[in-house]
Amino acid sequence: MEPKVKFNKEYLVVAQNASGRNLNVPVYRFKSDLPGPKVYLQSSIHGAEVQGNVVIYHLIQALQSAPLKGEIILVPNCNPVGSNLKSGEYTLGRFDPVNGQNWNRAYHFDQSLLDSFVEQVDPKADMAELKGLFRDHIKQGIDEVLTSEWGVGLAQQLNLKLQRFAFDADIVLDLHNGPVSTRHIYVPEYARESAKFFNIPHVILIPNKFAGALDEATFCPWWTLSELLQQKYPERHWQFGVEAFTVEMGSQEVIDFNAGEHDARSILSYLSAKGCFSEPLFTPDVMQRHAVFLRDYKTLFSQQGGIVEYLAKPGQIVKKHELLARVLNVDELEDNRAVGEISAPCDLIPILHFPSASVLGGTQLYKCFTNYFDL
Amino acid sequence: MEPKVKFNKEYLVVAQNASGRNLNVPVYRFKSDLPGPKVYLQSSIHGAEVQGNVVIYHLIQALQSAPLKGEIILVPNCNPVGSNLKSGEYTLGRFDPVNGQNWNRAYHFDQSLLDSFVEQVDPKADMAELKGLFRDHIKQGIDEVLTSEWGVGLAQQLNLKLQRFAFDADIVLDLHNGPVSTRHIYVPEYARESAKFFNIPHVILIPNKFAGALDEATFCPWWTLSELLQQKYPERHWQFGVEAFTVEMGSQEVIDFNAGEHDARSILSYLSAKGCFSEPLFTPDVMQRHAVFLRDYKTLFSQQGGIVEYLAKPGQIVKKHELLARVLNVDELEDNRAVGEISAPCDLIPILHFPSASVLGGTQLYKCFTNYFDL
Amino acid sequence: MEPKVKFNKEYLVVAQNASGRNLNVPVYRFKSDLPGPKVYLQSSIHGAEVQGNVVIYHLIQALQSAPLKGEIILVPNCNPVGSNLKSGEYTLGRFDPVNGQNWNRAYHFDQSLLDSFVEQVDPKADMAELKGLFRDHIKQGIDEVLTSEWGVGLAQQLNLKLQRFAFDADIVLDLHNGPVSTRHIYVPEYARESAKFFNIPHVILIPNKFAGALDEATFCPWWTLSELLQQKYPERHWQFGVEAFTVEMGSQEVIDFNAGEHDARSILSYLSAKGCFSEPLFTPDVMQRHAVFLRDYKTLFSQQGGIVEYLAKPGQIVKKHELLARVLNVDELEDNRAVGEISAPCDLIPILHFPSASVLGGTQLYKCFTNYFDL
Amino acid sequence: MEPKVKFNKEYLVVAQNASGRNLNVPVYRFKSDLPGPKVYLQSSIHGAEVQGNVVIYHLIQALQSAPLKGEIILVPNCNPVGSNLKSGEYTLGRFDPVNGQNWNRAYHFDQSLLDSFVEQVDPKADMAELKGLFRDHIKQGIDEVLTSEWGVGLAQQLNLKLQRFAFDADIVLDLHNGPVSTRHIYVPEYARESAKFFNIPHVILIPNKFAGALDEATFCPWWTLSELLQQKYPERHWQFGVEAFTVEMGSQEVIDFNAGEHDARSILSYLSAKGCFSEPLFTPDVMQRHAVFLRDYKTLFSQQGGIVEYLAKPGQIVKKHELLARVLNVDELEDNRAVGEISAPCDLIPILHFPSASVLGGTQLYKCFTNYFDL
Repeated sequence: MEPKVKFNKEYLVVAQNASGRNLNVPVYRFKSDLPGPKVYLQSSIHGAEVQGNVVIYHLIQALQSAPLKGEIILVPNCNPVGSNLKSGEYTLGRFDPVNGQNWNRAYHFDQSLLDSFVEQVDPKADMAELKGLFRDHIKQGIDEVLTSEWGVGLAQQLNLKLQRFAFDADIVLDLHNGPVSTRHIYVPEYARESAKFFNIPHVILIPNKFAGALDEATFCPWWTLSELLQQKYPERHWQFGVEAFTVEMGSQEVIDFNAGEHDARSILSYLSAKGCFSEPLFTPDVMQRHAVFLRDYKTLFSQQGGIVEYLAKPGQIVKKHELLARVLNVDELEDNRAVGEISAPCDLIPILHFPSASVLGGTQLYKCFTNYFDL
Repeated sequence: MEPKVKFNKEYLVVAQNASGRNLNVPVYRFKSDLPGPKVYLQSSIHGAEVQGNVVIYHLIQALQSAPLKGEIILVPNCNPVGSNLKSGEYTLGRFDPVNGQNWNRAYHFDQSLLDSFVEQVDPKADMAELKGLFRDHIKQGIDEVLTSEWGVGLAQQLNLKLQRFAFDADIVLDLHNGPVSTRHIYVPEYARESAKFFNIPHVILIPNKFAGALDEATFCPWWTLSELLQQKYPERHWQFGVEAFTVEMGSQEVIDFNAGEHDARSILSYLSAKGCFSEPLFTPDVMQRHAVFLRDYKTLFSQQGGIVEYLAKPGQIVKKHELLARVLNVDELEDNRAVGEISAPCDLIPILHFPSASVLGGTQLYKCFTNYFDL
Repeated sequence: MEPKVKFNKEYLVVAQNASGRNLNVPVYRFKSDLPGPKVYLQSSIHGAEVQGNVVIYHLIQALQSAPLKGEIILVPNCNPVGSNLKSGEYTLGRFDPVNGQNWNRAYHFDQSLLDSFVEQVDPKADMAELKGLFRDHIKQGIDEVLTSEWGVGLAQQLNLKLQRFAFDADIVLDLHNGPVSTRHIYVPEYARESAKFFNIPHVILIPNKFAGALDEATFCPWWTLSELLQQKYPERHWQFGVEAFTVEMGSQEVIDFNAGEHDARSILSYLSAKGCFSEPLFTPDVMQRHAVFLRDYKTLFSQQGGIVEYLAKPGQIVKKHELLARVLNVDELEDNRAVGEISAPCDLIPILHFPSASVLGGTQLYKCFTNYFDL
Repeated sequence: MEPKVKFNKEYLVVAQNASGRNLNVPVYRFKSDLPGPKVYLQSSIHGAEVQGNVVIYHLIQALQSAPLKGEIILVPNCNPVGSNLKSGEYTLGRFDPVNGQNWNRAYHFDQSLLDSFVEQVDPKADMAELKGLFRDHIKQGIDEVLTSEWGVGLAQQLNLKLQRFAFDADIVLDLHNGPVSTRHIYVPEYARESAKFFNIPHVILIPNKFAGALDEATFCPWWTLSELLQQKYPERHWQFGVEAFTVEMGSQEVIDFNAGEHDARSILSYLSAKGCFSEPLFTPDVMQRHAVFLRDYKTLFSQQGGIVEYLAKPGQIVKKHELLARVLNVDELEDNRAVGEISAPCDLIPILHFPSASVLGGTQLYKCFTNYFDL
């Protein structure tokens, strides 16, 4: 029997601009009458990373006739400030232009909330009930920040209003893009197996360390809770089944509807595996998946300033000492100092590179997989 | 017999920054002992348009062994302010960030200088001498602006210091890039035949109208002088043989050494045809060249804001009503208003498009050849 | 008998952002049942020039109980794009960040519309009817631009949508601020006497030359029409009684409610003199008013880059050779080249100065009245 | 007998720009033949905070005839990238425009360097020798970062090159400005008494916690070393006499030569007290000094967006519930929602406020002393 799915759209106010106007974001929600995981997706918290909006478009198309179990919430274009900040022809979407605060680094994680919660846990509690209590506990912490008498910063306000939604979910997908980038995904180490349900060739495995992003703000509390309870009550197996990912859907500043359809299928394949549909919509592609631990995902900075041709393309296998890029030095065009060469310090896969030919010394030229392995 | 060519490099101070430091640009000069045209090339007056620097690199390589006649001056990276202004990962290189002044719109043209010069012309003067007098006259006008007691604006100062060099030349090439762009060239209508010496498939023919750019600042005075003298002394044929072009070498924010070598060859082919070498280095490719008059080079603005996939690629032949682009509307993802379509208002060739997917209403989506013809 | 005044508020859509959302501006309208002039005021077309919003606030407070004749339309914060563009802590409000287009230079003026209209004028036409026909004629020209098949640029679109309102008015006031500035006003030469109704000490008299701003876009058509008709039909006195002003209400980036109340009183004094109220609300202050012709309103550019202390304050009388500013040169702090001095090239009144201590060479340090006289 | 003082100026390369040019900063050095403390001062690491350059100018003037003991190094305008980045008329000087990295948050502190050093300490070592060894140890750690095969980010590179100089000093002064700000100073808690030697009315006492700034990068290692050694070898008194301060010299974007002379005197008063001169140049003013612990230095964020008049001035005593600011809401000008009021949540002293009237919700309106006390 087909589940009955209700569709609903509302708007969430996340900020207020200098004209005194509320800035809201659309919240699309599909809710089944059958039980199942609760899923939260958002896109474009970094304003120039827009392909995720296309992915969400395709997801909404697919969900209109899918046999959903549980609930899926989709928030495209979730940063109305960053999405609308032009500087020259490009979108200055990665940080608050007032203070440089990265829009994806002001989510909330407070170790003391964990400690106080663990204190109260009944070690025999029903798992669903426990999850509900924990969600309330964390969201109450978020609300306290949001309602502080002294106010709260813009990025934090935006982040926390989204995080409140996300923290109710069992599955959180935050859709991003790299500068000029191949598709890749950040996966918490404990969810390593889930990486195989996505059709994404490059996987970064991250530890239980909070650095401000939404995926971490989602899984770090659950991961930590699980560890604390395991330690305190080792007799029970403390698994909460919550997963969160940052999914990098190619390059910023461009969209591609066809690629977006594939991206959507990749996500639906993962959601199928997680039991979000009464029958699977898609199964994952058979493909090679390269993985690294976060500590081996390294940044190569320019040693000199100049104009760069990026020779190594994102996703390409590069051996130690092979050429990655050439730098032109306009001050020495007449002799052999005119062109500098940048080589790979070790075997690597460039995952993304800087989107502009013009670089100062100290620019992030490439981010690379090193010591990578097959997943 | 091979000409003897002297190479020389110096630095020209064009501005002073807020640290009180002089900003200079390198000036590379090849001078033959054989007479020939004087040529001036510059690149990157718009700071993000960097491929011209690569072209100049290849030209300098080639000129080191070329049988030059006359003189060639090359000024790469000629705008040290615009080249170094990052805003996000891109270069904010088109205009002065203080006031919005386009770096390629503050060159000098003063009709009254023309009128006063024509007054004094001896109708039987030797042509070379006349050209020398006219150059001195115009450069004196430029110097008066540069030394004004009240000072002069930054863009104008930068432009005039370069223009003084350029105005001594018989041939001026200003190397630019479009946003995402096919190669194209701006040619004064009177020099239409010269467009065939470049390997550039798209040609814009421009009238004798000064709008502030270097090519116009070079050819408008000569063109106007020629017309005024022709009118006043119709018995003599007043041709000065000065040509100036804005050459658009593909897309901004990227460089490509291989493409730069082809671009250099295209320029050397033109210079060969103009007698800059004792024997031609290259001859132009046999190829189709599409041309328009400037009035038919039209801008298509977005009617709505949103996220755009540019389907029609620069250089592609597009028929009336064919699809150019799709726009995603994140506020209406659930129904058939989600995707808007933008079609060609008439037969056209898109020459360049906006480099970002994110557009407000009123953004220059495409610039297009309409009513184009073969050259 | 008191006039009956209807108040009404609506919203005008002037642009669409990259999220696909309409951007609108509030339009406050007071309409009397008694005939009288039609007045249009707007503020903050340059996004950082916000004091005009405070002035409009005070005007609306006053108008709620004023014996209005005719109609007053007030559009505060009329540029939702420019008002909301932060770059660092300041508002990048003077130009479109995509292309450098000044938000106050894309209004419409088309000489051919004048010529075609004068053709059709019945020299005996009723003046009110003639004004109505002319307004329709010009607005039709504006509408043709706005509905062009190829679209229209963002600044032009914003400007034209406002201009359609403004062109219906007999009196247009465009409220601006200078960088660090004393209060001053731009007045068309023919309306010189009207400058005495404002409590503004510095007056710039401008000729009939269109450079893109709203005041010019308003008075140039009427002024030109009047001249053309006067020439064609000299027997009749062709006066249309339309006036337009750019009013500079002090410095950008700050507001001051008390000063705003005085600014509002100054405007109400002018409107009183123009018969906008059944009895005058205020009369102008007795005060000295300095005036210049536009050609004598001169910009002093920095000759060198560095860090500047602005010694001469806006509005101060400065004699030739007196000190205006000091420049610190951090590269030479140990000797007497450390501090440069900038003196007045002639007797002058600085009206405004650059708002930052850090300047490149070629920065607009001061704008000054020279050859000024009492009005 | 007067000490002999050698003056010396050199240039330190700290970065390379996109034109491939080295960017250097001037390093002014006064070195006495008499022993004494080593002092390091820098200014304008945040590019718009320029008053410190004026202070250094006055210091250099004074030092040319002062009876110096030890050595003083002064590095004005120490951030050539940030100082030269205009965006609109202001200087975008607080963070790297490419990635939002605050220019004063990438200094180096590595706890493991401390641990490895303490291992090797001879508890009977001569203090001067120990300091020398520690300096070498830390600088070696810095050099390892600077010479990493993978390169280093721009802000970090700039910071580390300066930090190498600073870490040799016994006294480090980093000259800053607030947005619109009264003079205040950050003082490590252990150096509380030293705050009384400056003529600065507002003092923030900070704990031993590294957050990336130069003052912390200087005192945290010494403070930590002192604590670790005290713990390990409690019999000896481990005091190193190194002090570091961030001194906020009023508001950004303006300079004032007279105020700079007072600021210089304040610093010379402190240096006199520290034995930098064979006889004191100045003694501190008798004045009230308000102090807070860092945890009581609080930020008040805007709850709503709009246009703000800052009524409470920096330095002013404000009681709980007193009015701090008014916000204008242009969307509701016709009724009593037009003007919002922002009151003090408790007794406080505003130290600085946002420099623009235009704020989004979540903007840092004021930073305030709460729970302050007399020093």
